[in-house]
Amino acid sequence: MLSLNTATTRKQWSLAQAIAGCARHGIRGIAPWREQLQEMGVVPAAQAIRGHGLTVTGLCRGGMFSAADAAGRKAAIDDNLRAVDQAHALGAQCLVLVAGGLPSGSKDLYAAREQVRDGIATILPHSRRAGVALAIEPLHPMYAADRACINTLGQALDLCDALDPHEEGGLGVVVDVYHVWWDPRLEEQIARAGRARLLALHICDWLVPTRDLLNDRGMMGDGVIDLPRIRSWMQRAGYAGFHEVEIFSELNWWRRDPDEVLTTCKQRHQRFC
Amino acid sequence: MLSLNTATTRKQWSLAQAIAGCARHGIRGIAPWREQLQEMGVVPAAQAIRGHGLTVTGLCRGGMFSAADAAGRKAAIDDNLRAVDQAHALGAQCLVLVAGGLPSGSKDLYAAREQVRDGIATILPHSRRAGVALAIEPLHPMYAADRACINTLGQALDLCDALDPHEEGGLGVVVDVYHVWWDPRLEEQIARAGRARLLALHICDWLVPTRDLLNDRGMMGDGVIDLPRIRSWMQRAGYAGFHEVEIFSELNWWRRDPDEVLTTCKQRHQRFC
Repeated sequence: MLSLNTATTRKQWSLAQAIAGCARHGIRGIAPWREQLQEMGVVPAAQAIRGHGLTVTGLCRGGMFSAADAAGRKAAIDDNLRAVDQAHALGAQCLVLVAGGLPSGSKDLYAAREQVRDGIATILPHSRRAGVALAIEPLHPMYAADRACINTLGQALDLCDALDPHEEGGLGVVVDVYHVWWDPRLEEQIARAGRARLLALHICDWLVPTRDLLNDRGMMGDGVIDLPRIRSWMQRAGYAGFHEVEIFSELNWWRRDPDEVLTTCKQRHQRFC
Repeated sequence: MLSLNTATTRKQWSLAQAIAGCARHGIRGIAPWREQLQEMGVVPAAQAIRGHGLTVTGLCRGGMFSAADAAGRKAAIDDNLRAVDQAHALGAQCLVLVAGGLPSGSKDLYAAREQVRDGIATILPHSRRAGVALAIEPLHPMYAADRACINTLGQALDLCDALDPHEEGGLGVVVDVYHVWWDPRLEEQIARAGRARLLALHICDWLVPTRDLLNDRGMMGDGVIDLPRIRSWMQRAGYAGFHEVEIFSELNWWRRDPDEVLTTCKQRHQRFC
């Protein structure tokens, strides 16, 4: 089942338009970003999404816990608590957490990783009470400095083990193929995660060449990621959720008619996933 | 001790000029690339390098074993055998192997990795006879598709274990900080490699932002890599070799006076490594 991460159409469509677009195209899942959610308002967004019977496969995003000083870390915590409440209001299947990178001026990945661990530990009681699952998304190593110091699925699962040693739940991972497709340990780590911790699957493709580190993701089938293989590992581990398309594409898909983008997502998902 | 990987000055200097430059600046190691070596000729290059008493810390590069068909794989083997002979003629401490990425049209990283393993296995008897150590260089995951499907130090060491189970030697790894600095398992894997398999240390820095996936490396101190920490792990594991500067920098260092580049390398090496 397909879900639209609204980053895929964020240059063309507001959240209200994306919700209507999903409904029109028969896409049954949606994953909004908080910037657009603020613009629309949480209550109207929740109403529109429910009105169309869409599943919210995730809210993007919380995280960004690492900061240069205590005030910055406190602000991050506060922001994450608000994100949990928004995810709750939307009935989102998870709140996606992008860890955060190196604080300005720092070269200490170890310290940044401790801040991330402490940040998640701090919000976990609140998210559990709200019934919102936290989904740690390991990002590609090329984002280690500026976006996320959690860069492999194994590392994200180590963090889950540390913060949820008795597997009480409410904490897991996002597998985004763009970030993890290269990892020689991917199969074993997906199996290790298992059904309880596999909270979302994000899909797109890795283009060759990749012209920009951030906004040059490909449509499924246009790149080199072996999507059926990764999907089969997810299924074998018990994942039965949505396949959420998330494509940042300054040079291509953000320039196209968003109805064409959604039609293409559906076709490619059928053909290549 | 500093070594110059001649990629750092390849837009400004021929190999002959780089050799003379190293001698002039008191840099006692050099690592040539084969394109420039061909231009100069192997015998004249070896003579010039010996004449100045420089250590050849590596020859760049062999590898690129993965190919779409048997003829391509055979051509890669032949080229690697020639590279071994060139490394021998130069008295190089190792031949650097960049694995190769996905063959054109393929999405099968597993098959590519098998081809790499088979390729190294094929040339290993020849390199051992020649007394040339093969140094597998794991490349950053952002190069998995187009350059190297060996992307972590752990994976490179697994390959060493598979191909050299009794640790007969002649096979090891290059640790290039640019490729591995983000890896949460780096410390443990450097320790695992140990003195016998740590064949080279390449240094530069990771810039924030990085504007190009290939040619936007930074000078030591200009980025976020914790060089002293990685160097200390190498030392603890028994590595006592050169620190080889390798900077691909279209927008900065390739545009500067190469004498200024070498002076800066020396200063930064003293200050930041």
